[in-house]
Order: sequence, then C-alpha cells, then structure tokens
Amino acid sequence: MLKELFNPGSVVVIGASRTKGKVGNAVLENLLNDFKGNIIPINPKSSEILGLTCYPTILDVPDNIKSDLAVIVVPANFVPGIIDECGRAGVKNIIVISAGFKETGVEGAKLERECVAIATKYGMRMLGPNCLGLIDTTSGLNASFAASMAHKGNIALMSQSGAICTATLDWADAKGVGFSKFVSLGNKADLAENDLLMEFAGDKSTAVITAYLEGIKNGPQFMKIARCVSKIKPLIVLKSGSTAVGSRAVSSHTGTLAGSDEAYNAAFNQSGVIRADSVEDMLDYARAFSSQPVPDGKNIAILTNAGGLGIIAADACSKAGLSLASFEENTILRFRERLPPAANFYNPVDVLGDASADIYGYALEVLLNDKNVDGIILLTSPQAMTAVDEIAKIVTQKAGSSEKPILCSFVGGTRITKGVRILNSHQIPNYSFPERAVASMRTLCAYSDIKKQIYNSPPIAEYDKKRASQVLGNAAKLNQRTLGLESFDILKAYDIPVVTTATTKTLPETIEMCETIGYPVVMKIVSPDISHKSDVGGIRLNLRNADDVERAYHTMMSDVRRYISDAHISGVQVQRMITKGKEVIIGMNRDVQFGPLLMFGLGGTYVEFLKDVSFAVAPINRNDAKHMVASIKTYPLLAGVRGEAPSDIDSIIETLIKVSQMVTDFPQILEFEINPLMVLPDGQGCVAMDIRLTISEE
Amino acid sequence: MLKELFNPGSVVVIGASRTKGKVGNAVLENLLNDFKGNIIPINPKSSEILGLTCYPTILDVPDNIKSDLAVIVVPANFVPGIIDECGRAGVKNIIVISAGFKETGVEGAKLERECVAIATKYGMRMLGPNCLGLIDTTSGLNASFAASMAHKGNIALMSQSGAICTATLDWADAKGVGFSKFVSLGNKADLAENDLLMEFAGDKSTAVITAYLEGIKNGPQFMKIARCVSKIKPLIVLKSGSTAVGSRAVSSHTGTLAGSDEAYNAAFNQSGVIRADSVEDMLDYARAFSSQPVPDGKNIAILTNAGGLGIIAADACSKAGLSLASFEENTILRFRERLPPAANFYNPVDVLGDASADIYGYALEVLLNDKNVDGIILLTSPQAMTAVDEIAKIVTQKAGSSEKPILCSFVGGTRITKGVRILNSHQIPNYSFPERAVASMRTLCAYSDIKKQIYNSPPIAEYDKKRASQVLGNAAKLNQRTLGLESFDILKAYDIPVVTTATTKTLPETIEMCETIGYPVVMKIVSPDISHKSDVGGIRLNLRNADDVERAYHTMMSDVRRYISDAHISGVQVQRMITKGKEVIIGMNRDVQFGPLLMFGLGGTYVEFLKDVSFAVAPINRNDAKHMVASIKTYPLLAGVRGEAPSDIDSIIETLIKVSQMVTDFPQILEFEINPLMVLPDGQGCVAMDIRLTISEE
Repeated sequence: MLKELFNPGSVVVIGASRTKGKVGNAVLENLLNDFKGNIIPINPKSSEILGLTCYPTILDVPDNIKSDLAVIVVPANFVPGIIDECGRAGVKNIIVISAGFKETGVEGAKLERECVAIATKYGMRMLGPNCLGLIDTTSGLNASFAASMAHKGNIALMSQSGAICTATLDWADAKGVGFSKFVSLGNKADLAENDLLMEFAGDKSTAVITAYLEGIKNGPQFMKIARCVSKIKPLIVLKSGSTAVGSRAVSSHTGTLAGSDEAYNAAFNQSGVIRADSVEDMLDYARAFSSQPVPDGKNIAILTNAGGLGIIAADACSKAGLSLASFEENTILRFRERLPPAANFYNPVDVLGDASADIYGYALEVLLNDKNVDGIILLTSPQAMTAVDEIAKIVTQKAGSSEKPILCSFVGGTRITKGVRILNSHQIPNYSFPERAVASMRTLCAYSDIKKQIYNSPPIAEYDKKRASQVLGNAAKLNQRTLGLESFDILKAYDIPVVTTATTKTLPETIEMCETIGYPVVMKIVSPDISHKSDVGGIRLNLRNADDVERAYHTMMSDVRRYISDAHISGVQVQRMITKGKEVIIGMNRDVQFGPLLMFGLGGTYVEFLKDVSFAVAPINRNDAKHMVASIKTYPLLAGVRGEAPSDIDSIIETLIKVSQMVTDFPQILEFEINPLMVLPDGQGCVAMDIRLTISEE
Repeated sequence: MLKELFNPGSVVVIGASRTKGKVGNAVLENLLNDFKGNIIPINPKSSEILGLTCYPTILDVPDNIKSDLAVIVVPANFVPGIIDECGRAGVKNIIVISAGFKETGVEGAKLERECVAIATKYGMRMLGPNCLGLIDTTSGLNASFAASMAHKGNIALMSQSGAICTATLDWADAKGVGFSKFVSLGNKADLAENDLLMEFAGDKSTAVITAYLEGIKNGPQFMKIARCVSKIKPLIVLKSGSTAVGSRAVSSHTGTLAGSDEAYNAAFNQSGVIRADSVEDMLDYARAFSSQPVPDGKNIAILTNAGGLGIIAADACSKAGLSLASFEENTILRFRERLPPAANFYNPVDVLGDASADIYGYALEVLLNDKNVDGIILLTSPQAMTAVDEIAKIVTQKAGSSEKPILCSFVGGTRITKGVRILNSHQIPNYSFPERAVASMRTLCAYSDIKKQIYNSPPIAEYDKKRASQVLGNAAKLNQRTLGLESFDILKAYDIPVVTTATTKTLPETIEMCETIGYPVVMKIVSPDISHKSDVGGIRLNLRNADDVERAYHTMMSDVRRYISDAHISGVQVQRMITKGKEVIIGMNRDVQFGPLLMFGLGGTYVEFLKDVSFAVAPINRNDAKHMVASIKTYPLLAGVRGEAPSDIDSIIETLIKVSQMVTDFPQILEFEINPLMVLPDGQGCVAMDIRLTISEE
C-alpha cells in the first residue's frame, strides 16, 4: 500500500494557500511542477488556487475524483478532525506536515496519539507529523515544501530531521547527485524507518538506502528487516545522538529516547548496516554505491600524477585495512612499454606530473585488466602540464565498461571544476581529497563482505526452564532483586558448568566443607550489603589447608567489619579454586531500543579501564558469538601466544549462546553477569565462578 | 639572509625560455606578473625574452645589475656548473627547479651533493632541487612554475610535494583562501623545514604555519625550533608516510627515510606541533587560525536553525572533548525576550527553521556576551524561509568585533553559495559540514593550551657515569651485544633501585644465597641462548623455603632442556620476590629521525596486545615524564582505584628522567628495557626487577 504513498493517482492539499511564502502554497507549487496526477487544493476561503479548483473540505470533493493521498498543512489542533474527514473520504495515505505535536510536550504528544488512532481506524498510513514531506523522482511527486525538487537518481534517503533533508537536497543540487525517493520522517508517529526500509528495498529505482536517524522505533524489528534488506541493497545509516551530550540534544529535539551507542553499533553490525560517522560520510558512501560496482576483494591500485597524493592515499588505505595490490608481471611489462622511465610502476603508480590524458588512460586500462586489482583510486593534481578535462574524459570512457570500482580524487578548486563536472555527469564520483575516496572504497569493500554474510537463526536448545523459573520465582517471592552465586541453579538449568561451591555459616562447618571440596579453595563473604567483595577484603584466594582456612576466616571477618561495620553477614562461600584458566566476563544489560545487549570481555582488573569488551544484541547465533569472542583485543591471549596452550574458546561460544537464550527466555532478568567465567585449556571447558543478576520488580 | 630569498632586489632565471608550456617560460611569466625588482633571463640562444634583455650566462650580466636570487631550470647535469657561475656572480640564494637528482637514484644523489657543496662554498643557500619554486605574496615574488599566483593572506605553507602545492593553490583559489608565503621544498638538499620554520616564525605577514612533510631532516633540531615557534604561531604539520605501506611509498618517491609514526607523534606532542591527519584537515585548521581568535576555554555554544544539525555538532563536540557551555541566567532571559517560545534556549540553541537574520544576529550577540561561552559554532540549513545571505551578512557584522572564535557551517550547495562567499570575504571560515567546524574549533582550543605551555629543560643530575661506562666497556670488550640483569650496575650508577639479586651456578650455592636474600624468592634461568625466559619455563615465582627452591631448580632445568635442548645454561638467578607492587615497563628504542624514543607502559601479559603505552623523545623534562605516565589508559590503576593504595608515581617519573639521561649520555645503547619495574605503594619507591639492553657494534 505504501506504493500509493509514493505514486498516488491524486493528491489533496488540505490547507492549500495562494500566499507566497506559506507552506500551503509551497507544497502546491511543488506538486504542480512535475506531478502528473490530479491535484486538489482544499481551503474553505477559496474556490480556486493557482488555477486549480479549490474545495472547502475534502468531503466536498466530487465522488468521481479519487483522493489517494492527502497532505495536511493546517494548524495542529485542527489535524485530528481533518484526518477523520480524510478517512471518510476514502484517502489511502496522509502526510502531516504541520508541527505542534510531540516535539512541543505532553499536550502535543496526546494530540499526536489521537491522530494516529483516527488514521488507524480508517486503515490509513500517516507520515509525520512535523515533517517536510516526501519526494519521489520516478513518479514526479514532490509532496513537500522543500525549496527545490531532487534530481533523478538511485539513492533513497529518509531523515528524521527536515532541516537535514533541505541541506542535503541543496548540497546534492550543487554536486549533481540524484535521488529516487526522499522522505522526511518527522515525529514518526505512524510510518517510521522500518516501513520505509521495506518500501525502499522493493523499489526498483533505488540502489542505495540512506537514513539519518535520531532513534529507532522498534529495535528488534529493525534488525530483522535490516538483516534482509542489507543483503539486497547497501544500507547506510547516520545515527546521531551517539554521545551523552548529543543524546540530551536529541531528547530536547524530538523526544526520542536514544539508545546506548554500544547497542546501536552491535545491532548495526549484526544486521549488516553500514554506519556513517557524519553527514558527509553518508553522502560520500552513497555516491560510491550509487554508481560503482562492489569489488570482490580489498586489493586496491592507486593511480596518480603526484607522488605526494599517492603517499597520502597509501597511508589512508593502510589505516582503512585495504591492501595495495601487488601487480601481475604483465602489468609491469605493459607499464614499461609506454610510461616514462622515471614513473613508478609499482603501487601507487605515479605517471608523473606531466602525464597526458593518454598515459592516464593507458595506465588505467592496464590496471583494470590486472587480476590482482579489485578497485582503483585515481588521483589528479592540476599541475602545470595537466590536461584535467581530458583526463576526466578518458576516465569516463575507460570506466564505462569496468566491473571494478573507480573512485576519483581530483584535488584542487578552480582548475578542476570542469573535469569534476565531466566525472559527475558520467556517474564517476569525485572526492575532494584522497582520504575521502579511500574511506568510500573501504565502505564498498565492507559491503562486499556484508553481501556474502549468511544469517543463521540463533540455535534453540531444550533447557530446564522450569528450574530456572523457580530460582527467579523464589527470589521474587522474597522480594529479592539482586541475586549472587546462591542462584547458580539458574546456570545449571542452562547446562552452564559452575564451580563446586557451598555456603556455610560457622568456621567448623566451613573447614568441614573445604575438606570435602578439596584444596586449594577460595573463600568469599556472603552479605546482601556488599556488592564488590574484593573492595572490602571479602575474598581470600589459594587457601591450601585447614589452617589457611581458619586464618583467612578470622582476618576476612575483621577486614569486612572495618570497611562496613553494620553489614549483615550471612556467612561465607567456599569454592574449589581453579588456577589454570583465564578469566573472562559474560554480561547482559537491557537496552531500551534493542533489548538484551550481551557483553563479552577478558576479566581481571585491567579490563575496566581498557574497556576491551565486545557487544551483541541477543538472541545471537554461533557466528555472532564467535565474532564477540574474536573481536576483543586480547583475543590472542585466549587463542594462545608464545607456546601457551589455547583456551577452550568453543566453550565460551557455547556459554554465550546459552546466556543469550536464557536472557531471551526470561525478560525479567534486567542485568546479568558471569564474572569470572574461568576458561580452561582447549578441550577442558569453562567454569562459572560467580554470577550476579538483577530482576525486574514485576 | 633568507629574507632575500623571499624579497630579492633582482631575480635571474637561468634556462629562461620564450616557448609557452616550458618551465623556463612559465617561471618568467610568473615573475613578470607581480614582481617589482629586476628580472634577468639567461639563455645562450636568445638576446631578448618577453621584452627582457637576455644574457648567454650569468657571468655576462653587467656588474651594475645585481643578482640576488637565481632560479635554475636547466637539465640536471648542467646544474653544478651553473651554481658555480652563480657563486662567482655574487648570487645570494638559488632555487633549483630542475629534477633528476636524489629522486632518480644513486647518481642523482651524487649530483645533488655536488650542488650543495658548490653552493656552500660560495655561502649561497639553495632551495630544491626538484621543486615547484616559491611564492611570496607580500613582495609579489612568484618564482615558481605554478599555474597561478596565490591570493594574499596570512597562511605560510611549505610542502615536500610540488603537486600538493599546485592542488592546494588551486583549492585555495576557489575558496578565496590566501597565503603569505608558499614554498615547494623539493628534495631539501640544503634548505629544509627547519630553516623555513624560523623564517616563517619571524615573518610579520604570517599568522599560521602549515607544512606537508614526508620526513624531517634533523629531528632534534626540529623539536627545538618547533618548541619555540609553536608558542608564537600555530604550527600545523601533515606528516605522510605514517603507516608502513605509506612509508614504502615515501621511499620510492623522494628517498626520504621515514621515521616511525610513534616517534613523530611524541616529538610533535612534545614540541607543540598540531598534527593534521589529512590535507583537508590541515587546510581546515589553517583557515580557522587565519582569521579567528584563540579561545580561552573549551566551552562552546552551538547556534542553529536546524535541530538535527545541532545534535550532530553536539555529538562531535563531545567526541572532540569540547564542552557545551552552560549559559548565564541572563542569556536565557534575553533569549526568552525575543526568540520564539518553541525555540530551544539551551545549548544547542535552536532558533527554529523559520528564523530570520535578525533573530540569528540577536542570538549570536547574546551568546558573544555570555561569559560562560568561549567559542561559537553557527549552523545554518537553507530551509524554506531561510534568508541565507542576510544571515551571512549579520554574522560578519557581529563577528567583526568579537574576541571569541566563530566558526560557521552553512550546510548545502546551490542555495548557500552566495552566503558562503559573504562569509569568506569577511574572513569567517565556513565548513561544509558541522563535524568539520567542530574539529577546527577543537584545534583552536588545543592551541590555546599549547600557547600556555612552559618548557623546562630536562633536569641534569650528577650520576656515576664512569661506572656505567665500565659496564658498557666490558661488554664491548667481550663482544657482548645484549646485556641482561647481570648489568644491574648500570642502573645503580644512575641511582635506579634494583632488586637484591645474585647469580649462582649450583644448587647448594643457590640455596645458600636464597637463605641470605630472604624468602620468598624468584628463580630465573641464566642463558645467553634464551631471551624470553617465561616462554621456556625459565621463571619460578614465590619460592618460600629451601625445599621449594630445590624442587623448582630441578623442574626448571628439565623444562628448559625440553624446550631448547642445546641451550648453554650458565646458572640461575635468584631475587627477592616483591609481591606488593604493580608491574610497569620503561623502554627505549633509537628512532632514525628523532633519536632515543622512550616508552612507558603497564606491565604484564595484556600490555603487548592492548598496546597501552606512551612515548616521548629523550631527553625529557619532568612534565614530559608526568605526561607519559598519566597518558596510559590504565593510569587509574596506578593512581589507586576502589580504595586501593596509590602507587609511587613520583618514583616512576624519577626513573623515567634517569633513564632519559642515561640513554642520552650513552648513544651506544641502542635498545633498553626495564621490565618489570615494580612500583610499590606511594612513598615506598620502585624497584627494577630485570633489564635488557643492546649496544651498538662500535
């Protein structure tokens, strides 16, 4: 049905105006420019606007004139009534441009909900409110008050900020960049990113999808859709409000509750979304995808008439994780045939400052034919002898039939203007500086990997959910919100191995238990008032015999009392001490937008400061789990370095998957942490040493 | 004397030509455009070129015509002879534009050295060879074959790449950015960055210094000069070849031996150089410094007509370490007086999409008067009602008298062109996207700190250099290149505390020694064939009594034999075990360009992977040492977290300074490492546990 939002047979403009400078006038003018269907202005005070018959209300429009789409530009408090009239008139989709809703506060939010309710009642979808409108260059529909029409192109854009829409349209106008669809999302009361993602995915005129978002309405659903869409078309998202300060600005702007940045990164990464760091990056990347093929590999050739630019691009490639291609022998031979002897035949290929367009063309063709080259970055400095325009022309000729991406960076200003225009008009993107071309090439390469990704559903195994449920139920009954290792049963229910452990209340009982467990043991304080045991001297390691245990018991009690004199101490916990393993952490927090966010990291004191952790949104599949483990910096320590035996990484992966299922099964678990999970040498598994979880109040 | 390089009374062009397209013609044409002094073409085949009297050689120029500067554009092999003639003719400075020297290989390098020798003989300074020439907009001298003259301005630029000169000139032409001096360094055979830095520092027409460098000729000298210059004028350097791949490209380009990137970062940081990451960044920063005052603090106000752009800028500020200013009460009151009620009065200030130029001007003035605001980022999206040009005009009016920096980002293309031109013509920099404006603001703020830095000379203390010298001398006599903890004496000579340690050859001897040292002890294998002791089981910790020592001795010997069966084992080393401290590393490597590069980091297995280390070029002062310690990520662990006692950080700083002096005193020490240095709780000092150093062959 969204098809008719972008390609309606007729459009009604409610609040149309004949006064220049008014939004109701701008919308009508824009529609008149390119739209071929019926345009019907509504305004009780006019009978004709801009040569079109005007009706007092939509209900006055004769029955034989269909009203597919209504654009509403009347003051906020009239909008609910107008929507109701639209519903009665059989309108299919509405765009509410008017502001004065959620963004203004509680009253506005109420009004907004009312609008959605009415639209829903009639089965209408609604874009906005508080938006610029939308543009479809295929159908010629410009149902917006933008100052200009978008050029025709294959980039679809949606933006939660109308001002970014206008700025981008104007930027694109100057650069000659075209769009297929251009949508201002506004407050996203009804239609939001997920609806448009699906629409853009199926749209034949769209090759790349871009989005400026300040928040996401339905995170899990977004991940599902993005996961599919990103395999079909590149999906580039600029998510702002990514820092604490930025987030504050978001709330005051649109009232969207921004999710944590880690959650966004994890979710985007798991679902194949390319995250842009700035508006400029988003547009840069979109231009590359818009016209260039996706390369098969990461081996890049740099072609330049300026050594300095070549070095800069080589630096940037290296930082971006791209390789400089090693050329085939034949390439060097062919270079030797025609390039001047002082040229550099190896990567970066420097055809020298006085290179003619012919030489450029020759070198480009040779590189395009080299099987070791996956993509080309072509640099030009406008030197004394440089025929910039001729070079641009020959590049467009050679690029025409190429299956490898060519990104250009003609660097300069006045003297390259015409050359850049030639490149642009042939859909070869030019970047103002080499580093930008490299960043876009890196993104093309990254998408080549995304396209190949196969998504497997998270594995679902049968666990003892009843037993886990009992643990949580008992705690709830006791009104206990924070659980410690007394709730190891919940891990056992999910087949996660735990260390042999027991809680005791007296010293003799403790010694007896240690003799049973076997030495060495670890002793920990048990108290509801103490959360960081080691901070108050509440942990004793490596107790080797009964004497050690007795001494540790006494000193620990006095240490703890010294820190927290009034702590309620319920006893001590004794555990078999595991000495051979490596400590890791598995944790989970619930993110407002995406739900359970799993964390993995190497344990120990350093980790808190080095933040060497990885995240993923649960439920995760095996690949996600593998990626989580492999993406921390200290992964080599787990994989085994300097002759050390590798740790049992498979057992970490299994545990991550089990935790993922557990926190998915039990949404009442708000926070969860196994710390440490002791990972033994390969083949020997892992053992949870302690846990901590908090459960919700209901 | 360099004054006359930029402002000569007369210029001789040797190799002048009447043929369009030839370098010898382009140089002459450029000179004729603006230069007011004598211009004398030299060419044996002509008597007149472009209306100027031409002489066969410089020696034929009549004595009454002085020849201050000679520009040489003849083929490389004629250059030495020509330079000699220049010397005889009394020329003061020469510019060798001709290529065919070091960049072509060994023969060219020889020719280049010959040129320098001749020039030096006559007391002439030489720019180039293999360069574009130079431009001085104050004297009107364009002694280059650049396609156009630079606009007049206050940015000085030197570039090791001629092509980057041309590209930048062309870029600046389009943006209306002006330069004071513009120098293509070429091969830097004689004149190099250090000479020009001093010249630019003293040049009244220069306010900002920028440099594109692929290497530095004299690192220590550069640091000395940059340290002074950076306090007078901002000094922005783009150093390329910063990655391994990039470095390869550098060598093939100019034959410069690139230093390691860590050394450059350390040296730049220690001497107040602002490092740009890209050409674009360098030019962005230069534009900000060129026209805007340096702010007193980091509290930034964002003023926008578009919420989305405001959020993006707020995000960028937060990432850049800038604060969003909290406004004075009066500011909010004044906003309430005139801004529309739906505007956001707090930072980012959103004057809404329909804001007039008057409203912008009012808000800007209020912000400029707020004592809590140090700098302003002004954003504009060209929305339907936005009077872009009027806004630009009012910004230039308000900015005129401002002592706070104002950086603009009018985002768009076609519709903002005129407004941006208005800003540019009033020296207000406009950045195409908000993130770029924020990055430049961050750099202005960073320079505010650099200006305030006071440099203290590295402290020099009296140490027992003779004793240290003996250690190194003995090793040299024995032809021993790698020393271990048997050379603890060198630390003792510099008053660095070392752990009690002894080397023994038999088990009984070992036990006896342990009894003397006191338990617990650590035992390590001593073998010239083993460098990473722990990898082969060559370290035993926490031996508590004679039994422990005996058992450890036997198992260690068999373990080591198992790994390296033919290792020569000279004995074992026993040390008192220090249990209370934190392990850190102090190291040194010699960098090709800057000399001794000190490293500091937290010890332990993780560090190798987390690379949590800091660097500084020796000799260091106390500030440098403090900065080294405080800039690692795990610094909080040393400072004391969660009630843990702080470590003795002062003792680390002292040790760093002592090591700095030691490696400065003894250049034959190529590599040096104290690993670990055990840092005890505050007030208890630190203890070197092991060292490793390599000394040079002569």
